[in-house]
Amino acid sequence: MSVPIDDRGLLLGDGLFETLLVVGGAPVWWAEHMARLRRGCGTLGLPEPTEDAALAAAAAAMAGATHARAALRLTWTAGSGGRGLDRPSMLGPRLLSSLAPAPRSTSPLRLAIAQVRRNGGSPASRHKTLAYLDNVLARREAQVAGADEAVMLNTDGEVACAAAANIFWMDDGDLFTPALECGVLDGLARAAVMDRAAALGVTVREVRAGPEALAHADAVFLTNSLVGLRPAATLEGRGLANPPLLDALAADLP
Amino acid sequence: MSVPIDDRGLLLGDGLFETLLVVGGAPVWWAEHMARLRRGCGTLGLPEPTEDAALAAAAAAMAGATHARAALRLTWTAGSGGRGLDRPSMLGPRLLSSLAPAPRSTSPLRLAIAQVRRNGGSPASRHKTLAYLDNVLARREAQVAGADEAVMLNTDGEVACAAAANIFWMDDGDLFTPALECGVLDGLARAAVMDRAAALGVTVREVRAGPEALAHADAVFLTNSLVGLRPAATLEGRGLANPPLLDALAADLP
Repeated sequence: MSVPIDDRGLLLGDGLFETLLVVGGAPVWWAEHMARLRRGCGTLGLPEPTEDAALAAAAAAMAGATHARAALRLTWTAGSGGRGLDRPSMLGPRLLSSLAPAPRSTSPLRLAIAQVRRNGGSPASRHKTLAYLDNVLARREAQVAGADEAVMLNTDGEVACAAAANIFWMDDGDLFTPALECGVLDGLARAAVMDRAAALGVTVREVRAGPEALAHADAVFLTNSLVGLRPAATLEGRGLANPPLLDALAADLP
Repeated sequence: MSVPIDDRGLLLGDGLFETLLVVGGAPVWWAEHMARLRRGCGTLGLPEPTEDAALAAAAAAMAGATHARAALRLTWTAGSGGRGLDRPSMLGPRLLSSLAPAPRSTSPLRLAIAQVRRNGGSPASRHKTLAYLDNVLARREAQVAGADEAVMLNTDGEVACAAAANIFWMDDGDLFTPALECGVLDGLARAAVMDRAAALGVTVREVRAGPEALAHADAVFLTNSLVGLRPAATLEGRGLANPPLLDALAADLP
């Protein structure tokens, strides 16, 4: 499967994607992922893929796969054409799909705070767009620092997210996560964890907070569709706790 | 010509590009464009394309073309592979090339200030990367507002550039352009105009300035490799002057 070299996703990052967990051959949170992709289309000014086309693309990627857990990626590019930055008057978006194994990772997760900032001044920061280079660079920074994943601050210096996950922290029994206004993806696992916390009688406060909040935290964990909830073992080399509440919050996740 | 759908340029915006003006079959500022591409590789942590490979890709795109003025785009992607954001241990970057006619535009240029901000907190803002969505969205905003091109502020609220050009303004006989530290591409036409200004005995001040500087300017002009120097007719609907100095500054440009 290939795309022509005039595709705007390739040339300009003009498009969106979703990464879905597939368990036993079935995509998890399909409707929620599709709804988020459609919201992204609204922000970027792209037409939405039809449900039938998305289902067909997903089925094509999943055909014959036998992984217990897999990652299904759907990519929706603005299609070919236009002169430079300008989109053509008639858009012909492209829908791409691929599948990869996604085994659960059980190694201790080490976090480092990246220098690369998340753009708080772009609506793209609230969506999974094909212009994901800042996240790639943040991840690279973390790895160079001997960590596994980056914590990204936004351009106002507030904690935003990890390079490929939402972030939560626990301080003196209270749970916190950055507000969406910080330039954060509206994560599906993030929402599920907040719902689960509410059911357990624990409030998650959505906050705008600087990195000092993390420096003071007892526990930090990441969430995304593929890994569910993953506790961090260290942040900038400082050891973190893994209190029983984290298991309770993760209990519902696929 | 096509790329496989696991290309990181397509999936993540992981790569760089250069757009060169081709006049009468010959690329303009070849060495400077290649040097900038190599600097970008350093920032992104990508290997550099070889000169031979770049020349061959350019020749392939230009073969048989008869446009008086054309745009040659060279695209250097991080290649296939890796899991999610992580690059593979052995990178196999891809070099793509294409040519399009690039006639001089002579219509009056109307500018509007976009809401989408340029990320002052990412090194990518200093380079021409494949993650160009913010610029696409800024251009779209300008067009929706009835203008032709967007002026982008950075996340600190300072004037940075246009969506696809550097920006200069003239105020009471003095020339200004945003400092590179504002998150600005090190434009080749920008440098040529600054050199020409110096030769004319005119100083260009590289500044960090808010949009009020533009609101007060007598003249505003854009520069890039394709158009050279192009005066703006209006900014946010306000008429601008086109003083003779602009012709003098443009005299050297291809």
